[in-house]
Amino acid sequence: MTNKGLSTEPYKGMRDFYPEDMAVQRYIFDVWSETAESFGFERYDAPILEPSDLYKSKGAENEEMVNQQTYTFTDRGDREVTMRPEMTPSVARMVAGRRRELTYPVRWYSIPNLFRYERPQKGRLREHYQLNCDIFGADHFSIDVEIIALAYHTFLNFGATPDMFEIRINNRKEMSALYESVGITDTEEQTKITRLNDRFRKIEKDDYKNELMEILGDKELVKKVYALISAEGEQPSNKVLEGLKVLGIKNVVVDRSLARGFDYYTGTIFELFDVSGENNRSMLGGGRYDNLTALFGGEPITGIGFGMGDVTMRDFLTTHNLLTAGITAPTLMILPTDEEFNIEAQKIALEFRAAGVSVCVDPTTKKVGRKISDAADAFVSYVLVLGENEMKSQTYTVKNLEEKSEVSGTLAELIEKIAD
Amino acid sequence: MTNKGLSTEPYKGMRDFYPEDMAVQRYIFDVWSETAESFGFERYDAPILEPSDLYKSKGAENEEMVNQQTYTFTDRGDREVTMRPEMTPSVARMVAGRRRELTYPVRWYSIPNLFRYERPQKGRLREHYQLNCDIFGADHFSIDVEIIALAYHTFLNFGATPDMFEIRINNRKEMSALYESVGITDTEEQTKITRLNDRFRKIEKDDYKNELMEILGDKELVKKVYALISAEGEQPSNKVLEGLKVLGIKNVVVDRSLARGFDYYTGTIFELFDVSGENNRSMLGGGRYDNLTALFGGEPITGIGFGMGDVTMRDFLTTHNLLTAGITAPTLMILPTDEEFNIEAQKIALEFRAAGVSVCVDPTTKKVGRKISDAADAFVSYVLVLGENEMKSQTYTVKNLEEKSEVSGTLAELIEKIAD
Repeated sequence: MTNKGLSTEPYKGMRDFYPEDMAVQRYIFDVWSETAESFGFERYDAPILEPSDLYKSKGAENEEMVNQQTYTFTDRGDREVTMRPEMTPSVARMVAGRRRELTYPVRWYSIPNLFRYERPQKGRLREHYQLNCDIFGADHFSIDVEIIALAYHTFLNFGATPDMFEIRINNRKEMSALYESVGITDTEEQTKITRLNDRFRKIEKDDYKNELMEILGDKELVKKVYALISAEGEQPSNKVLEGLKVLGIKNVVVDRSLARGFDYYTGTIFELFDVSGENNRSMLGGGRYDNLTALFGGEPITGIGFGMGDVTMRDFLTTHNLLTAGITAPTLMILPTDEEFNIEAQKIALEFRAAGVSVCVDPTTKKVGRKISDAADAFVSYVLVLGENEMKSQTYTVKNLEEKSEVSGTLAELIEKIAD
Repeated sequence: MTNKGLSTEPYKGMRDFYPEDMAVQRYIFDVWSETAESFGFERYDAPILEPSDLYKSKGAENEEMVNQQTYTFTDRGDREVTMRPEMTPSVARMVAGRRRELTYPVRWYSIPNLFRYERPQKGRLREHYQLNCDIFGADHFSIDVEIIALAYHTFLNFGATPDMFEIRINNRKEMSALYESVGITDTEEQTKITRLNDRFRKIEKDDYKNELMEILGDKELVKKVYALISAEGEQPSNKVLEGLKVLGIKNVVVDRSLARGFDYYTGTIFELFDVSGENNRSMLGGGRYDNLTALFGGEPITGIGFGMGDVTMRDFLTTHNLLTAGITAPTLMILPTDEEFNIEAQKIALEFRAAGVSVCVDPTTKKVGRKISDAADAFVSYVLVLGENEMKSQTYTVKNLEEKSEVSGTLAELIEKIAD
């Protein structure tokens, strides 16, 4: 082995979480789970490996996606497996597996890590975490309102205000009806327009119209469809939008160009955007899927859900100065002046711990002054120096590093003080 | 597609966590992280995929292990990657990557999921979670005492008593010295004995002696080594054992046959066993490794740590009747008598939620009686029925499903009551 040795970098596109990053990650997960639970959602999880068929079985297009954009390999039992790129197929599998035992509506959430094999770029990594919330077995539009309200309140619970983000909604069924209203009844033509719409905000108006002309081959029709999609004239509305207004959620627009990537959506679809201009990627996306559990046989169970990623969430919180989470340091550090007091120091630590104080020992041979300054650098609040005098007198002094004050007493007295 | 469709089972050897299983899992993780933090440990994490070299680089034996017992595959960039089978190499990589910035001792913990490609059996699955605790950059024996005390207190914090489990410790350096004391100086011979010792408690005395004879080829030497390993005569002791006694930890023995699988251990090694006889597998194992960070170049940083699995933990808690964690249900469910009140129900839910009450709506068309019994089955504490009368009068009734009592009032009055 050379002296240089193996690389200390993580695998490309994936992250190490050193304690200061982990503290941010845990803060984000805590807000996610507290919000979901305040809406009565229960947490679940599933394995990271799934049979590849779970993602491929929805058609040739999906097969291509699985082959090119996921971590897929064959295990030694000759099964093709995929590291989960999304959670919805797994949760649909779990719901289908207990379809008869469950009481509907089922409200479930999860915080899985997901994997995609792509060139890493801003806001998209090869491993990321996602809050996934789904409601199964209820199709009243108030459920669509509820799931969007949950997304909205998640942002509010991070300290965001409604002017920082915008929710865009659309509806696949309504879009079909609109296309039919101008005479486009061919579902393949409709699907082509939906895919084109996915780029509506990314390309020039004229390019959009030209591509639309290629699909439709009729200038008048192109005009009509363009008017629909761009919502020239009246701002469209729908029941979900009205329901959200009743709940006081007003930063929502119906966006006829909103398409969403996955083919399995059948009704309401929605995305949430940062309006600061700093983060162009959608922060969250979801929708209603009526047929996903049918993959497992039996009558389909309707579902609606969304996924919200940790990478974009962190970018959003940073942009809007909402990240306040800091590292968790132990409350107290015990500093023996000599190695021979290390075991006694561990014993004293146990007594503080029994009273609920987080505490550890610096067992090194550093000078006490250095031990104190290292403790301060690590954001420790209190230190207790343990030397010959303390060992003999059984009287100890605790220094408050923040307030630069100190207090002396027996162990019992000090434990009572610090545990407060 | 046939009507039967895809399987709803998880991938072999891996687990779905339905909400009731997830509640147990979260309880275990919570006790783990609370205990580690009470000892001043900070949480970190690393990617699930690592370059295979991280596990292979410790010799041919490791290469065989990686090839046969892990999920290893080649990515599209022609890099060989492995789904992490253990956490220690990743944490050593992270420490080595910041060797100059860190203040020692570093106390870190993590709760990673780990993967191994084996036939699933009791206590061993293909995906499992582990509490990993490590201390870097301090080699005083009081640190060995501390890490074992942390393992011990984790069990106590689950409600276990010391009579339910036993800690066995040994020391690789002491074993070398013992072998040398009887004239076995060849390190290869020593390694062979260590590997044989790994089966000491699983095979017959005579078989053990015969295999020892094959290694040593000297009857007198076999007798001496057997006496050492079986500790016939006096119970051996060491400084770590004595230190643990000072901390009141007495269910510990020095076990000269304790070997531990990984080759990287260099000093203290330890395992923890359930003494009920129900769970024979070691519940936890660890030890000191002096040279692991040297893989990444530079001066090695000493480390000591352990891993404790969720599968064996759960078995232990079940065996000893220590599992009390239940599912988390919403506190309140709002039950509209008709779909037309669903949005108003969502609005009322938001108001309770703002006061810290977890609440959801049953938006289905079920009869109210059925909605109430479903809520009771789901362990919901309170229900509020929302019908025409309530809509008109703006006076509502909350039923306590556990105490079979009820209280009426305005929304503000009821929110105040329930939020209490």
